[in-house]
This record gives sequence, C-alpha cells and structure tokens, in this order.
Amino acid sequence: MEDPWQVCMDYATHVARKAGEMIRAALKNEMTVMLKSSPADLVTETDQKVESMIISSIKEKFPSHSFIGEESVAAGVKSTFTDNPTWIIDPIDGTTNFVHRFPFVAVSIGFAVKKELEFGIVYSCVEDKMYTGRKGKGAFCNGQPLKVSEQQDITKSLILTELGSSRTPEVMKTILSNMDRLLSIPVHGLRAVGSAAVNTCLVATGAVEAYYEIGIHCWDIAAGAVIVQEAGGIVLDVNGGPLDLMSRRIIAANSQAIGQRIAKEIQAFSCERDDAE
Amino acid sequence: MEDPWQVCMDYATHVARKAGEMIRAALKNEMTVMLKSSPADLVTETDQKVESMIISSIKEKFPSHSFIGEESVAAGVKSTFTDNPTWIIDPIDGTTNFVHRFPFVAVSIGFAVKKELEFGIVYSCVEDKMYTGRKGKGAFCNGQPLKVSEQQDITKSLILTELGSSRTPEVMKTILSNMDRLLSIPVHGLRAVGSAAVNTCLVATGAVEAYYEIGIHCWDIAAGAVIVQEAGGIVLDVNGGPLDLMSRRIIAANSQAIGQRIAKEIQAFSCERDDAE
Repeated sequence: MEDPWQVCMDYATHVARKAGEMIRAALKNEMTVMLKSSPADLVTETDQKVESMIISSIKEKFPSHSFIGEESVAAGVKSTFTDNPTWIIDPIDGTTNFVHRFPFVAVSIGFAVKKELEFGIVYSCVEDKMYTGRKGKGAFCNGQPLKVSEQQDITKSLILTELGSSRTPEVMKTILSNMDRLLSIPVHGLRAVGSAAVNTCLVATGAVEAYYEIGIHCWDIAAGAVIVQEAGGIVLDVNGGPLDLMSRRIIAANSQAIGQRIAKEIQAFSCERDDAE
Repeated sequence: MEDPWQVCMDYATHVARKAGEMIRAALKNEMTVMLKSSPADLVTETDQKVESMIISSIKEKFPSHSFIGEESVAAGVKSTFTDNPTWIIDPIDGTTNFVHRFPFVAVSIGFAVKKELEFGIVYSCVEDKMYTGRKGKGAFCNGQPLKVSEQQDITKSLILTELGSSRTPEVMKTILSNMDRLLSIPVHGLRAVGSAAVNTCLVATGAVEAYYEIGIHCWDIAAGAVIVQEAGGIVLDVNGGPLDLMSRRIIAANSQAIGQRIAKEIQAFSCERDDAE
C-alpha cells in the first residue's frame, strides 16, 4: 500500500466538515460559557460535544489509534504522545471567537505516526474554508493549491500573533514587548485574528509571512504545521531550532530568513509542556 | 422630498461595488508599493486609480458636492470640512492588507451634510460584504439588518484595535500600554484585522463589543461611524466626549458602558488634525 494514511485523511476531512456543521448550528443558539485557566480562557458545551463526536467517529473506524484532544485533556486525560498512530484534535480552535461569533473558528485535526505529522486538516467553518495538507503531497484550500509568500525581507513582512489568554502580568509584558521589538525592526504590520489554526493556514496562503505564539497547545498547531510546510513554509521553535510539538511554542514562516529573524527578536516565557507528567 | 440623500446613497453603493471590482482585479497582479509617512504607511497605484474613479464618477452626477479623499489629500488637496454636501472617501482602507493580500480590504464612502454624517458605505471587497448605514434607517450587511452586541460587561468583551503605521517609539509605547491596560481589566481578548472600516463594521455586526484607535483619518471612519450607530452602537472620542471626525481618534462601541470604560483606560497621543491648516 503506497499511502496507508490517505484513508485516515479522507475520513478526517469528512469528520471535520460534520464538526463544522455542528459549530455553525451552535452559533445560532444561546451559549453557556465556562472558564478554564483564566478569565480569558473559555470553553462551551459545544467544544465538548464536538470533540466527543470527532473522537467517537474516528475510534469506531480506527479502534487501535490514540487520541490527544483539547477537551479530553481538560477533563483529565493525559496527553501522552507515543509512536502509535495519534489523532491530535482541537474541536473549536478560537473558542473566544466562537463565543463572540467573531468569524474565525476552526476544527483542527492533525495526525501523527511515530511522532511524525502525516497530515493536517483545518476547517475554518464560518468562512467555509477547508485547508488540508498531506506530507509530501502539498497543501490546499477548498482544493486550490497553497503557496507561501516569497518575501524574504522582514521589513516588508506582515506577521500574525496573538495576545493570548494568560492575564499574568509578566506574561503579558513579554508578549507586548515582543510585538514592540518586531514593530521596531520595522515590519509592515502585526495582525491577530484569534485562532492559531487559522493563523498558520494564513501563512500557508501567502497573506502573511509568519505567525508566532508562545502558550498555544499541540492541538492548536499540529494540523496547521503540516499545511504550512506543504505550502513551502517552515515551522520552528521560538529559539530557532526544530519545532517541538509539545513545547507550546511555534514560529510558522514562509522562509528561514524571516523565521530565524523572528526567533532572534522574541523572548520566551515558560509554559508547562503539554506532555508534562 | 422626504429623503434627498437616498439617490446619493444608492449611487455610492453602485460606485463602491465598481471600486471593489477594480481592487479584486488588482489583487491578481503584481503591484508597486510606495511609502508615505513611515516604512509601514503604504500606498499603491491602485489606491490612486480607485480614488480617481470614485471621485470622477460622483462629480459627474453631483458636480456641486465637495470631496475629502485619502489620496487627494496625500497629493496636496486640503481636507476642508464645510457645510456643503461632502463625500469622505478611502478608496482602499487596509492598504497594507491589500499589498499582502490579507483578506480585509474595504472601500469606504461616507457622506455628510452640514458636517453631519448622513450615510456610510463600507464594501469589504474580498469577503464581498456590502455594509450600509443611513441615518435613522438602520444598518445592513448584504441587505441583512445589523445589531450590536448586548454585552455590557467589559470583562466579557472582545475588542478590536490596531498597532498602527507609526514607528515612533513613544507612539508604539502608548499603543502597547493601552492594550496592556485593557487586557488587565481583564477583557476576553483583543483582535487586529488591519482595516479601520472593517473594524467599525465588525462592532456593528456584534462580533466585537468595541473598536478604538488613535491615528486614523476621517476617511477611515466616516462611513463606519454611521453604520455602527445605525446598528445601535455609539461613537466617541477617546476622551469619552463626542466623536470629532477630524481629530483622528475614535471609540466605536456597542454601549456607553463599554465605550466609556475604554475611554477611561486608554491614553491618547497627539496627532496632527485632518483639518490642520
């Protein structure tokens, strides 16, 4: 069998679309918002319902596979990353956007084998944009091939990041001072749309040169990391080394030139790893 | 005649759509980018061409009217705001987005009589969203009525702002410290999509509770100001007083509660007025 994971990818696309329908339906109704780690870290019943649907649908078809899902982890399941085929799921990436009906809300499904990412699906469901990437086979949005920007000059770049959900003064101070450092290079501008998965896909489309963030989780970026790489981009740790999916830090860029320059400018703050015991 | 300006508004919608077609066509081609006030204040030939088309089309139909247009002002025309019926035009609001093909790019056409805004048209042309507002007659997006968010609690609000195009250290410091103050209240989050006109319309849709910015120009906000008010929202100066269209500062909010709280938190910096002699 030439590509044993294509059947998984096709199924993931189908399940992501079904999840997107659930989210779009939920956007029409009243919602109850609960808090997680901070007054800005939100979750709704829809996050939990959509994750249950995704995991149970996939388990039925691939019962031996492993799962790391945002809401399962929130409910106490350990996010242990093994060599087993593993689905890494964020049912609603951009929950704050979802709560406010701000139109960037995505279903993110990444898939790794032997800890290596094989494919990623990001379905930006309000925009109805299905982003897909398969290792070695390119990245697409609604079937159209994606390609990163060719800009290599950081002073002509547009960069995405987020203010994040931490309200710890030192963390906010570092986030804002990183923005200041980049603006001062100068860059053309900074944008923040509120979904890590969509941010990474926007790098893949060429609309921005890079996206960086500290404090995200593996389920926010696993799928997008494949998509940006398959669109000709790169993913790095914020120290400029290789991406560590469990380290909660990422730079996704169109090129080494821009990615490494961002790594040089920004300062990190510590986060508990996703695979901490 | 019950509404003498409806014919102007209908024509503005027609011209905005034509401008949007020019912009969408230009997005498919190579572009030459020129700098204005800073390395992050960009302009292209398309900005100039689209403004020419808009002004000449309107002048032909309404030869006695006055015009304040971003590119005409850049070319040396004074932006004198008189009692005469006046069209206030930004051919491409979000030029940096346009240059990067980041998908928020709007044609903004406001119309004032005796210095009072009568209607506003914001055409977000990549999204194909036509926002319209007519004094006393409501606000619409693609014909659907708009209504601001009902949230009155700032700690549950989502707020839009921008990092701006100034690269003056003190200005950037104030912009970032204002973001820090709002995050610390805390708010749910901050977003930045890169177009003042779209930002104001997003307040009108209810997707965010407020948008504030210092350093914008009258042509960025004239149209949006009508739309947000007609969707049930308010526009303020950043000191909490009434909006002064020429002062280059705005808070657009869903409510006095949220607008005034933002006014209380943020600090202003000085900008040369749009009507400075």
